[in-house]
Amino acid sequence: MHKNQNFRTDLACEAIQRYQENICNTITEEITKDKLKITKTVVGLEDEELVGKKKGTYFAIDLSNTNFHDTKSCMEIEKALMDVLCEILKENNLINKKCLVIGLGNINVTPDSLGPYVLDNLVVTRHLFKMDTVNVGYSEVSGLTPGVMGATGIETFDIIQSVVNKIGVDYVIVVDALASASISRVNKTIQVTDTGISPGSGVGNKRKELSIETLGIPVIAVGVPTVVDAVTIVSDSMDYIVKYLNQKRMGTSSKANALTVKEVKIDYEEASCVPENFKEHLMGQIGMLEPHQVKALVEDVLSPNGYNMIVTPKEIDADVEDLAKILAMAINITLHESLRKSYLG
Amino acid sequence: MHKNQNFRTDLACEAIQRYQENICNTITEEITKDKLKITKTVVGLEDEELVGKKKGTYFAIDLSNTNFHDTKSCMEIEKALMDVLCEILKENNLINKKCLVIGLGNINVTPDSLGPYVLDNLVVTRHLFKMDTVNVGYSEVSGLTPGVMGATGIETFDIIQSVVNKIGVDYVIVVDALASASISRVNKTIQVTDTGISPGSGVGNKRKELSIETLGIPVIAVGVPTVVDAVTIVSDSMDYIVKYLNQKRMGTSSKANALTVKEVKIDYEEASCVPENFKEHLMGQIGMLEPHQVKALVEDVLSPNGYNMIVTPKEIDADVEDLAKILAMAINITLHESLRKSYLG
Amino acid sequence: MHKNQNFRTDLACEAIQRYQENICNTITEEITKDKLKITKTVVGLEDEELVGKKKGTYFAIDLSNTNFHDTKSCMEIEKALMDVLCEILKENNLINKKCLVIGLGNINVTPDSLGPYVLDNLVVTRHLFKMDTVNVGYSEVSGLTPGVMGATGIETFDIIQSVVNKIGVDYVIVVDALASASISRVNKTIQVTDTGISPGSGVGNKRKELSIETLGIPVIAVGVPTVVDAVTIVSDSMDYIVKYLNQKRMGTSSKANALTVKEVKIDYEEASCVPENFKEHLMGQIGMLEPHQVKALVEDVLSPNGYNMIVTPKEIDADVEDLAKILAMAINITLHESLRKSYLG
Amino acid sequence: MHKNQNFRTDLACEAIQRYQENICNTITEEITKDKLKITKTVVGLEDEELVGKKKGTYFAIDLSNTNFHDTKSCMEIEKALMDVLCEILKENNLINKKCLVIGLGNINVTPDSLGPYVLDNLVVTRHLFKMDTVNVGYSEVSGLTPGVMGATGIETFDIIQSVVNKIGVDYVIVVDALASASISRVNKTIQVTDTGISPGSGVGNKRKELSIETLGIPVIAVGVPTVVDAVTIVSDSMDYIVKYLNQKRMGTSSKANALTVKEVKIDYEEASCVPENFKEHLMGQIGMLEPHQVKALVEDVLSPNGYNMIVTPKEIDADVEDLAKILAMAINITLHESLRKSYLG
Repeated sequence: MHKNQNFRTDLACEAIQRYQENICNTITEEITKDKLKITKTVVGLEDEELVGKKKGTYFAIDLSNTNFHDTKSCMEIEKALMDVLCEILKENNLINKKCLVIGLGNINVTPDSLGPYVLDNLVVTRHLFKMDTVNVGYSEVSGLTPGVMGATGIETFDIIQSVVNKIGVDYVIVVDALASASISRVNKTIQVTDTGISPGSGVGNKRKELSIETLGIPVIAVGVPTVVDAVTIVSDSMDYIVKYLNQKRMGTSSKANALTVKEVKIDYEEASCVPENFKEHLMGQIGMLEPHQVKALVEDVLSPNGYNMIVTPKEIDADVEDLAKILAMAINITLHESLRKSYLG
Repeated sequence: MHKNQNFRTDLACEAIQRYQENICNTITEEITKDKLKITKTVVGLEDEELVGKKKGTYFAIDLSNTNFHDTKSCMEIEKALMDVLCEILKENNLINKKCLVIGLGNINVTPDSLGPYVLDNLVVTRHLFKMDTVNVGYSEVSGLTPGVMGATGIETFDIIQSVVNKIGVDYVIVVDALASASISRVNKTIQVTDTGISPGSGVGNKRKELSIETLGIPVIAVGVPTVVDAVTIVSDSMDYIVKYLNQKRMGTSSKANALTVKEVKIDYEEASCVPENFKEHLMGQIGMLEPHQVKALVEDVLSPNGYNMIVTPKEIDADVEDLAKILAMAINITLHESLRKSYLG
Repeated sequence: MHKNQNFRTDLACEAIQRYQENICNTITEEITKDKLKITKTVVGLEDEELVGKKKGTYFAIDLSNTNFHDTKSCMEIEKALMDVLCEILKENNLINKKCLVIGLGNINVTPDSLGPYVLDNLVVTRHLFKMDTVNVGYSEVSGLTPGVMGATGIETFDIIQSVVNKIGVDYVIVVDALASASISRVNKTIQVTDTGISPGSGVGNKRKELSIETLGIPVIAVGVPTVVDAVTIVSDSMDYIVKYLNQKRMGTSSKANALTVKEVKIDYEEASCVPENFKEHLMGQIGMLEPHQVKALVEDVLSPNGYNMIVTPKEIDADVEDLAKILAMAINITLHESLRKSYLG
Repeated sequence: MHKNQNFRTDLACEAIQRYQENICNTITEEITKDKLKITKTVVGLEDEELVGKKKGTYFAIDLSNTNFHDTKSCMEIEKALMDVLCEILKENNLINKKCLVIGLGNINVTPDSLGPYVLDNLVVTRHLFKMDTVNVGYSEVSGLTPGVMGATGIETFDIIQSVVNKIGVDYVIVVDALASASISRVNKTIQVTDTGISPGSGVGNKRKELSIETLGIPVIAVGVPTVVDAVTIVSDSMDYIVKYLNQKRMGTSSKANALTVKEVKIDYEEASCVPENFKEHLMGQIGMLEPHQVKALVEDVLSPNGYNMIVTPKEIDADVEDLAKILAMAINITLHESLRKSYLG
C-alpha cells in the first residue's frame, strides 16, 4: 500500500473517491433524505488493498447542508442515522441481539471525546435484564468507555476483548472520533460500517483493529471525523486553487492574479479535469506532481518543524456536544423499540 | 449484624469508635505529623462481625486541622499519604510489583468522581514497559476507570476481574469516594487499607467486594468520604445537643434554653458521658434510646418522604479537585522511585 | 426582626407558612396544573417585617410530584413557568420591554451555578437590534454574568448598576440559586417574584439588594433553592420526629420506641398540632422550645466546630444542568413571541 | 492599509517581520533567559500604519523551545513573564496602583477561554481593601469576565467602560486569546503590550478597542495566540515549500520531486531569499505572486465554500488550561509583593 501512505483518512468515501478510476468491485449508491445525502458503499474484496479499506458496507451521512445545532435538523439526522443503523443491523442479523456499545477516545481531549460523550447519553439495560426488572420494548444493552492507552497503559483492544469475553454479548457498536482527509468533511459526515475500526489509523497511530476477525463477534463502527492534519489542509487547498482558477479561466477568461470575480462557490470534489499545461502554467513543477506526491512533499516541509499540527475547528466544543447527543439518541431509538415508538410518534 | 444495620460508614475508625467497649482484638495507634493525625488500626478476626469491617490494617489520615487547598499543606498530606502507602505496600510485599490503579465512581457526579479524577493525574507506564521504552526508576503501572453499573449495565467487579486476568498484574490499588457516618469527617479523612473495598456499602447500595479473596491478588483501597446521609447528620446532631448542654450544665450551670454562652468549641467525639437522668430531662423518651435506635427512628421519619438525601458540602467541586490531585501525586511518588526522588528534592 | 434571625430562607412560601397565624394582609392562592402545584402569594406591607419578605407578588412552582429529568415533565414545567412569567410581566407592564437577564452565582461551584448556566442557554438579541438585523417576533434581550465578589473583588450590585445605567434597559430578570429552610424544597421549587432579590441572604451572607428601589427599574427574580444548611436539616427533622410519633400514637397507639409501622408517608408540612405534654414526654425540655429556639440551639451546637455545613444533594450536577435548561427555555419563550409560537405549536 | 487586509495577526512581532524592510522607527531587541527567547519591540508612530500595530512597546516570549506542561519549565515562564510585566508596569508608572484584570473571551469555546480561565486563578483583593481586612504586601486588584457579545448582546467595551468608571481603578490588564498569522506560533508565544487590544481583530471581527485612548487609563494586554485560519496555514505552507526546495537545491542539487532527503529542519522564518526564476520554475504563476496576493487568492478559494475554518491544535484543552495557570501565577506574583516573595524564595 505504498501509494496511499500519505493518504490518511478513516472515511471510506474519501478513499473510494481518490481511487475511483481503478476500483473494480465496489458499488456506491446515493439517496437524499430531507437535506441529507446518504451514500452507501459496498467495498469488494478485490478493492481492499487499493483503497485501504476493508471489504464490507459503509454508509456516509453528509451533514454539510444542514445545521446540527438546530433541534429540527437534529431530529432529521437522528432518524436518518437510525434508518442506517437498522439496515446494517438487519443485514447482519443483529436486530434485538445483546449489544455492547463502546465509546473510544479521551474525554479530556475535546476532539477525541465523541465516544465517551455518546456513552454518557446511552440507555443501558443489561443490569436490569440480570435483575429481571426490565420493561417490554427494551433490548439488552451495555456500555463501556475503556479510555486511551496513554492514560491506562493498557492496549484498548485488550480491555474490550476481556470484557466481551466476560459478559457475553452478541455484537459490538463502537463509537469513535475519526480523522478526515478533507477539511470539508470535518464534523460534517457520520460514517457507519460493519467492518469494524482501527482506532487511530486516520492519524497514523494505529492500534489493534476491532472487528469480527479479532473479537469474534460483529463490530459496527459509528464515527464522525473531528480532526484533519495541516498537511491535508495544505494539499487540498493547492488542488482547489488550480481548480478554482481553471473554473474562472473557462467562465470568465480571468488571469491567475485577476482576483475580481468573488464568491463563486465551486464544488471542488466534482470539478472537471484541469488540463496539464494549465496546471504547469499556474503551479510550475509542483503542479505536475500526483496528489500523493504533493502530500508527501508538504509532509516533508511541515513535519520536521512540528508544523504538521492535527487541528480541529474552533467550535469543536459545541460541535462534539451536539453530535454526541445525536449519535446517542439514534443508537437508543435503534436498539430500544419502546423508545423508538415514543420518539417517532 | 442487626445492630449496625443503620450504621453506615466506609470508615473503619468510625466503626471502631462506635463499638470500642466491645472490641477484643483490635489495636489502634496514633501518630502526629505536621498538623496531621494518622491513626493505624489493625482489626482482628474476632472483631470483624462486631464492627462490620474486615480483618486487616486501616490507616486514617485526619485532615481536619489543615487546609488542603493550600500548596504547602498539600505537600504535607502528600508525603504523609506516601509514607502510609509505602508502609502498607511493604507489609504486603508489593514494593515495585506490577500495579493496576482503579478509579471507581462516576465522573459526572462530583461527589462520586474522586476515583476517575485521580486516574486523570496518574502516571501510567505499562505500555512503555511493553515497548521497552521506560526509564529507570519507574515501576509498571496501569490504570482503569470502569464506570458505574448504572452507566454501563455491567457489574463493575466483572470489568475489573476480566481486565486483571487479561493483563497480569500483581496487585490493585482502588481509589473511591466513601460515605461517612459523621459530618465532621466529610472531605476530611483519607483512609488506606489492605482489606479491599465493597463499593457503595457506605450508602446501602452494596456491590461485589474487591479484595484478595475475590480478585486473587492484594487490593489496597484508598478513599475519602465525600457524602453523608441526612439521617446521619440528624442523629449525630441530636447526640451533640445533649453533650453540648451537659458540658454547659457542668461548666456554667446553664439551663437547656439558656443559649447565652457562645462559641465554646467542644470535641463531641471525646466528650464525657452524659448522665441518664439528664438525658431524659433534656430529650425525654428519645433521649433514652440507644444511638442505633435513634438512627432507625430518624430513618423511619425521613425516608418515606424522600427527605433522607445523601448530601455533600457546597464546596464539593473544589474539594474533590484538590483531593484528587493530592491522592494522585502521593500514588505517583509511591510507585515511581524516580518521581519520588525529584519530588522530595 | 429578632425572632427570625435563625430562620434563613429565600423562599417566601416558607416564611409565610412559618408565621401564618400572625399575618394580617397577605393573600395566598393555589392552582394545580398537570402535576404542578403553583402558589401565588401577595405579601402586604403590614407583613413585611413579620415574615422578613418584601411587599409584592411571589409565585412558587412545586416540582415535588414531577421528574424534571424527563422530557415531557420538562415541557410541563417550562409552560407553567412561562405562564407565571407572563403574568408577572403583564402585572408590571413589562411585556415586550427591553430586558437584561442577569445570572448571579459562581459557575465553578455547582450548587451556585444555576444563574450562569441559565445565561449559557439564553437567546440574546440586543446586539442584533443595534445592527437592525433582528427578525420579527423577538424582543430586545441582553444578558450578564457578573460573577461573585469573592472572584471579582467588586460588589456584584456595582457591576450590575453600572451596566444597567450604560445600556438602557427597561427591567431586569435576575436568576439565582437560593437557600431553602426545608430539605423538602431543595431543587424542588421555582420561585418567581417582582420584589427583586438580596443575593446570599438565605445563607446569612447578605449582599446589596437588587430591586426597583436600588436599581430604579423593575427587578423580576427567578430562583431555585439548591442548598440547605445542616442546622435546618436537624431542626426540621426534630420537628418531624415529634409529628411522626404523634401520628403513629393516634393511628396505632404505638410507643415512642415501637418502631414497627414502616413507610407511612406523612405530610409534615400539614401535620396536625402535637399536644404539649406529648412533646415533653417525647423530647423533654427540648420539646418545649419554640422552633426558632431549637434552630438557635442547633446552630450553637454545630457552628463552633464547623459542622454547620451548607449542603446540597449528591445529584446536584444533573439537577442544576436540567433546571438551568428549563429556566432558560421558559425565559426564552416568554420574552420572544416567535420562539413561543414555534415551541407551543 | 490596503496591503495588509489579508494579513491577520494579533502579534506585533509577526507584523514587524512581514514589513521589516520598510519600517523606519521601530526598535527590536532580543534577550534569552533559560530556554526562552524574549523580544522587545518599540513601534514608532511613523510605522503604525505600515505594520498595522499601534505605537508602543510589545514583548513576545517565545515558548517554542520549552514544554509548558512541565512544572519546572512553567516556573521559568512564570518568572520571565513576571519580569516583563514588572518592566512594563514600571515604564508606565503603574507599580502598586489599583488594577482591574479583565478576562476576555468565551469560557464555553476552549480556544477562546484563556481570559476567563486566567481570571479563575487570579488573587483579587479589592473587596478586602474596602473592608480594611487586607494583609501587607498585597496591592488592590479586582477582576472581571465580561463575556462575549454573542452571549450578552452587549458590546464588551461598554461593560468594561461602565465598570471602570464605577469602581475607580488606575489601570487595566486585559487577558485574551489571540490569532496568529503563523502556525508556528499557536500556543507558543506570550505577547505583552502597553498599547491595549482590539478584541477579535486577529480574526477579522473587530470590536471596540480597549486602550488608554478609549478607556482613559493605561491598558496592558497579555495574550497568547490559540487559533490560526486555514488561509494562513495554506499560504504559509506554500511559502515554506519554495524555501524548503530552494534549500535542498542549494544543499543537495535535488529536483522538485526528488523527495529523498528527509527531516532537514529549516528555520523558515529566517530562510534566505529564493531566486525569482526558481520560484516560477517551481510554482508557476502563483510563485510570482506577492505574499499578500497569495493570501487573497487562497481566501477566495476557501471562503465561499466555508473551508476557511479557524482552527486550533487538537491538544487545545490541556494547552489552554496550563497556559492560563502560568499567566495567572505571573500576574499574581507581579501584582502582590507578598506572593512574589514566597514564590521566589
